[in-house]
Amino acid sequence: MSEGRAIWPVAWRQVEIADGFWAPRCETVRTVTLPLEYEINQRNGVLEAYQWDWQERDQGTPPWRIILGDLGKWIEAASYAIALHHDAQMAARIEHAVQSMLRGQKEDGYLYANPLYREQRWANLQEYSELYEAGHDIEAAVAHFQATGQSHFLEAMCRCADLLVARFGRGEGQIRGYDGHPEIELALVRLYRATGERRYLELAAYFVDERGQPPLYFPAELQELQRRNLPTLGWYRGRDYALCQAHKPVREQEEAVGHAVRALYLYSGMADVSAETGDAGLLATCRRLWQSVTHRKMYVTGGVGSTAQGEAFAADFDLPNETAYAETCANVALVFFAHRMLQIEADSEYADVMERALYNGVLSGLALDGRRFFYANPLSAHPRGEVREGHVATQRQEWFRCACCPPNVARLLTSLGGYIYSTSAPTATQRLALYVHLYVGGRVTSDLLGQRVTLCQETRYPWKETVSITLELKSPLQFALALRIPGWCRGAALCVNGESVRLQDCLRRGYAYLERRWQQGDRVVLTLPMPVERVEANPAVWADCGRVALQRGPLVYCLEEVDNGPALADLRLPCGAPLLASYRPELLGGVVALSGAAQRRTAAGWRDQLYRPDSSPFQPADILAVPYCLWANREPGEMQVWVQGS
Amino acid sequence: MSEGRAIWPVAWRQVEIADGFWAPRCETVRTVTLPLEYEINQRNGVLEAYQWDWQERDQGTPPWRIILGDLGKWIEAASYAIALHHDAQMAARIEHAVQSMLRGQKEDGYLYANPLYREQRWANLQEYSELYEAGHDIEAAVAHFQATGQSHFLEAMCRCADLLVARFGRGEGQIRGYDGHPEIELALVRLYRATGERRYLELAAYFVDERGQPPLYFPAELQELQRRNLPTLGWYRGRDYALCQAHKPVREQEEAVGHAVRALYLYSGMADVSAETGDAGLLATCRRLWQSVTHRKMYVTGGVGSTAQGEAFAADFDLPNETAYAETCANVALVFFAHRMLQIEADSEYADVMERALYNGVLSGLALDGRRFFYANPLSAHPRGEVREGHVATQRQEWFRCACCPPNVARLLTSLGGYIYSTSAPTATQRLALYVHLYVGGRVTSDLLGQRVTLCQETRYPWKETVSITLELKSPLQFALALRIPGWCRGAALCVNGESVRLQDCLRRGYAYLERRWQQGDRVVLTLPMPVERVEANPAVWADCGRVALQRGPLVYCLEEVDNGPALADLRLPCGAPLLASYRPELLGGVVALSGAAQRRTAAGWRDQLYRPDSSPFQPADILAVPYCLWANREPGEMQVWVQGS
Repeated sequence: MSEGRAIWPVAWRQVEIADGFWAPRCETVRTVTLPLEYEINQRNGVLEAYQWDWQERDQGTPPWRIILGDLGKWIEAASYAIALHHDAQMAARIEHAVQSMLRGQKEDGYLYANPLYREQRWANLQEYSELYEAGHDIEAAVAHFQATGQSHFLEAMCRCADLLVARFGRGEGQIRGYDGHPEIELALVRLYRATGERRYLELAAYFVDERGQPPLYFPAELQELQRRNLPTLGWYRGRDYALCQAHKPVREQEEAVGHAVRALYLYSGMADVSAETGDAGLLATCRRLWQSVTHRKMYVTGGVGSTAQGEAFAADFDLPNETAYAETCANVALVFFAHRMLQIEADSEYADVMERALYNGVLSGLALDGRRFFYANPLSAHPRGEVREGHVATQRQEWFRCACCPPNVARLLTSLGGYIYSTSAPTATQRLALYVHLYVGGRVTSDLLGQRVTLCQETRYPWKETVSITLELKSPLQFALALRIPGWCRGAALCVNGESVRLQDCLRRGYAYLERRWQQGDRVVLTLPMPVERVEANPAVWADCGRVALQRGPLVYCLEEVDNGPALADLRLPCGAPLLASYRPELLGGVVALSGAAQRRTAAGWRDQLYRPDSSPFQPADILAVPYCLWANREPGEMQVWVQGS
Repeated sequence: MSEGRAIWPVAWRQVEIADGFWAPRCETVRTVTLPLEYEINQRNGVLEAYQWDWQERDQGTPPWRIILGDLGKWIEAASYAIALHHDAQMAARIEHAVQSMLRGQKEDGYLYANPLYREQRWANLQEYSELYEAGHDIEAAVAHFQATGQSHFLEAMCRCADLLVARFGRGEGQIRGYDGHPEIELALVRLYRATGERRYLELAAYFVDERGQPPLYFPAELQELQRRNLPTLGWYRGRDYALCQAHKPVREQEEAVGHAVRALYLYSGMADVSAETGDAGLLATCRRLWQSVTHRKMYVTGGVGSTAQGEAFAADFDLPNETAYAETCANVALVFFAHRMLQIEADSEYADVMERALYNGVLSGLALDGRRFFYANPLSAHPRGEVREGHVATQRQEWFRCACCPPNVARLLTSLGGYIYSTSAPTATQRLALYVHLYVGGRVTSDLLGQRVTLCQETRYPWKETVSITLELKSPLQFALALRIPGWCRGAALCVNGESVRLQDCLRRGYAYLERRWQQGDRVVLTLPMPVERVEANPAVWADCGRVALQRGPLVYCLEEVDNGPALADLRLPCGAPLLASYRPELLGGVVALSGAAQRRTAAGWRDQLYRPDSSPFQPADILAVPYCLWANREPGEMQVWVQGS
């Protein structure tokens, strides 16, 4: 065990989710989204792509380059799903997908979906994403192995990884490059953890550290491509290398820049390497980039990557609401990064962001019925607002040309159990502990110093403020139960077996450590008061000045036209007006909605004119706010998170 | 004289501008901007482009396709300038530019700047803009003839136009197409007016009416290009033909759509054709499109084309402030369209919009020193806001890759005199009249029924509310002096020779008609009260809800960081708080600035965090607003037109 991390996640296989909030969503992913994704992949020829020899085909169009990795993500998600719920048809589809993929694997382990560019191996690392795809396929293989116990896919991907180990690096005859789209880094660490083969970790560390080293690899690569008259996609040519975080060595990077998914996959891989090697310098970089993302470039929904230009991070505090990109994949990747940093530091700051993204900007990407998706997750939308690539911001899409997001949400939700708990082993500096990061009803079974401990969470979180935790153990055991006190919560209260515990005595870095000799049936009740909060943004965020967002518990709320009529922008929320939270079983499958008295500018007296002297009075208006993560599940219309204050 | 128009503009040559507002700006254009533009064109090889035979060159890059027409616009602007102010050097440069251009003219009259595509005449009308360029060159030739009295350039462009007359149309063997970028239509009407040759008007009418007729020309053109393996630029391929207003016949177009400059040049040409032919159906279309633009798609600054996507009109009421495109050229084109409609209808609605665009969204495109330019004219800008094509929104640029705007502003300002006055001849339905559309100090000399009438305007408009008009005539003459009462003004007052006139008795369609037997020395004093107005936008404009703009007279004001400190978005203007207008001679060359008491959210207590429960109180803050047209002439920083109200 290295010194590089404080805690270890309890694996998804050991966690059962049985609550009213997440369990139905996970079930929808399993029964609706995953079959749908498979069928679309089938229809789009994604499964066949691996077997095509483009040379032999004289017509037809191969699947678009960027499908790379999407089948891997689907296999990963489906593998989690079948491990938790037996499903023969899905198991067969997984096997068919794996076989389709592996039929395209070359003798030496090389595997790449796109037949058009397969001949020039690794000649265009900046644009072709061969290693990005390999990373997703490796992640899929690890998940597949863990889910099924079958090793053929994992072995195949080890051969692929071994080929990379042989071909990439600083040695004689090796390619001293790295991929334009990070992903391989975190995948290799995951493969190392699954196999114990240190060479995979070392290659991950190489990819992390070589990135952005002078002289830059990509300009030289482009020159060579042009010399050899090989195709380039033109997309990144001449662009700032910051788009793929290759503008300078990662340890010198101070600010999160460029394509947000790439950035957060890279940072996740960096955190992984640091966790395994105890590399303090790399960890310091991760902390700095974490702060750049979450203290200066993140929406209140946990959405990141605010600009469509390059699907990228914008400048500090540039967080426009209507044109927010906040790609679902980027928000998923923020969960990955947060989860990794949390294991290293055991600080609730990371879990707070993980929760914010999960409950808001990630979940918003998936329709309640599991059949439609958001790629971008704006915080304000209007049916007449700008149409991007044919998509109206107020309507979920059935699929995307670049369909990266749907399987990304799917794999996160089918493995959600893995994000809830961690354990720590006793060392000189820390205690034996079982951590609860997220409040999700269900059970976890974990080994603590060889003893099987089961923890049951009963809660109607995020709707209700009470979490009951019951412990099951064969014999008493001394350990700390570490419960996260969410950053959004003031006035949390704790009881152990009916006795109140003074929170300030046991709080460290956002966790309440209840250390005692725990016994069978011990019961902890955590109360997290959830008043409706008006949230304001830092004055540096110019898009939100004069506005408030409504939040209750971890959920950010929004106004929708279907509940409030059109012209949402004309509503204002008087300071101090009471806002009532009430459970509405008929609404969106049952939600706590917020209602209250607001004001609306009267729209009277306007003839066919655009401007006039300011003369419109305000009238009382009732508002109803619903959780942002559930917007656009009814009639399409306007939506707004940040509402005018007064 | 046709029935198609109510009034005729008094030509720019007959108008002298001698005021404190426009005269210095026009002088800067003449002495700084025009020489600068010439030198940049020279440096960029624009003058040589016409003479290049690309076949013979084996290296080098031709000037970018889109420079087409820019040299024509420069010649046009410079011609106006030298006619009003003798300038031997500029006259020599004009002649050199004309000769450079004409050296590239083919035997049969064909003229086209871009050597790369010259061989395939008119094969790619959608993308190559050959007729767009011809239109600007024709406009230049007419202006050059009127300014210099020399006819060689005009004759050359008549040969060019004659070639088009021969080659385009519905006859046997003619090309039944039209240009992707309208401009030729209005240019041909202008050539018709200068030469009296009706075939030019007829070709203009053909181009107008053929546009968008089924079956569409452009898809067939593309097919033919592909069949012949000729180059396409790829920019418009597969795009909606609405981008160039060729999606349906113009008479069926209900809504202003697509590229805003193309649209407004087209509508201007349509208005011209209608004015000359009395075509009532075409005029009805122009009115409908006018309303679409000005009642539903125009910024308070007169900026139009709100989206950068295709430099186009967005949906009704989609008028975002920070991402506003509102290209300077589009705002100039709105002046063109408004001026044409005004001559047809003699309704102040058109002059109001013309004034709004001129004093705000057009003038904002040109720095006070004449050396830097805005291409886009946002209504809110932040130094950390999104960077577009390398340009920060808060800083004017020295030049653009597509440098269409600088010469467009230049030609409008050097011919500004032509927009101020009109006359009407007596007919069965209307009286002999001299119209004043804009209040600009100076003199005009016009013939009214053969008598020379001079009108002197003395005014410090737009800073001061009084306009004194003195008439000079040899002998008394019965006619109406028609003075525009601006739409922004309430409580205008009129005196003739010291005697008050009841405005309601003489007001028709926004003009006060003072009909009498005018004599030498008669004096009219018009008072246009200019209180500071808070303007609100139609509630349908969601970007402006909860906000007010400040306007005084025709000028829209804005807040700049240099006067108000950073975080402008955190300022709010309490309803009813007094706003004081005062002349500040030291500011921006002397302006009336607005000052008043506002409130600012306190920025205290924020640690390194993005969001917190709403708790910031407001503090009193003084604000200073300056005319929008003069922003970004001092230290770069934030700017905002629409300010939070309360």
